[in-house]
Amino acid sequence: MSEINEKAKNTVKLLREKGKKVSSAESCTGGLISAAITSVSGASEVFEMGICSYANRIKSEFLCVPDDILEKFGAVSEEVALAMANGVKNAAKSDYGVSTTGIAGPSGGSPEKPVGTVWIGVCSQRTLRAEKFVFSAENCPNGISERDHIRLQAALKALEILENEIISCDF
Amino acid sequence: MSEINEKAKNTVKLLREKGKKVSSAESCTGGLISAAITSVSGASEVFEMGICSYANRIKSEFLCVPDDILEKFGAVSEEVALAMANGVKNAAKSDYGVSTTGIAGPSGGSPEKPVGTVWIGVCSQRTLRAEKFVFSAENCPNGISERDHIRLQAALKALEILENEIISCDF
Repeated sequence: MSEINEKAKNTVKLLREKGKKVSSAESCTGGLISAAITSVSGASEVFEMGICSYANRIKSEFLCVPDDILEKFGAVSEEVALAMANGVKNAAKSDYGVSTTGIAGPSGGSPEKPVGTVWIGVCSQRTLRAEKFVFSAENCPNGISERDHIRLQAALKALEILENEIISCDF
Repeated sequence: MSEINEKAKNTVKLLREKGKKVSSAESCTGGLISAAITSVSGASEVFEMGICSYANRIKSEFLCVPDDILEKFGAVSEEVALAMANGVKNAAKSDYGVSTTGIAGPSGGSPEKPVGTVWIGVCSQRTLRAEKFVFSAENCPNGISERDHIRLQAALKALEILENEIISCDF
């Protein structure tokens, strides 16, 4: 958890320096990103909303992810990660949006989308993009389930991608 | 974290047995409740949405917390905890709603509402109520900030209150 908290700390610092805000839309990470960001004192200046949109209905109703996208590509897809990041940015009227959608396991995997598959989306004034990862359940630390091990890796990676986007953005 | 995960595990088990769903509206806990619930495999059957409503605007827009309530009583109040629990239950169309709003610190405290003050709300078919706690930053485990120590205590207590409500509900 400490690596995530460190990453969140730097992300909050960067956002405060630039006077920008972020919002999060989390499926498989279930709130780990918003919990990490809000663990930083002063986060309220840069973070207004996180949505843990576990059900497809919530992705559609609250994040405006189109139903036909969900149906055609499935919840764990590039298209849905993009729509979630864009949707939460718009809903929260923030400068950045970050999203995760994936299969944390232990069930729910398939040959095309094995357990550990996570799409991470990021949206800013200059970009909307998503990247696919397949996190491994191996080398799981003591006392942490394989499911949480995958979720924590995904949350950390999402914060890394967000941090890099904030650094790269000149505005 | 393990105590919270255990509590979340039992809460998910109870909800699955009863065929009921829960949603969460978190301010000071920032997603710790949704992260704990979704750490349980099978949580998607009972958990559709969590909102981390850090800003007052989000509490008002997404959870229908009336602006005059926010203005009159402040975000950290019984009235807002009640409205958040009720608001997220309605928004998610779930059977239970749980909410937290408080001051995790280290800044933001006042003589009337010291750091550690947290209102926890719960809403079900039979009840809408909120309870006030003042969590201590003392006995903070190694490697955890006092802020997180307060947040984790609040998330655990919220899960306890939710669990008891689910057990008490006959439907």
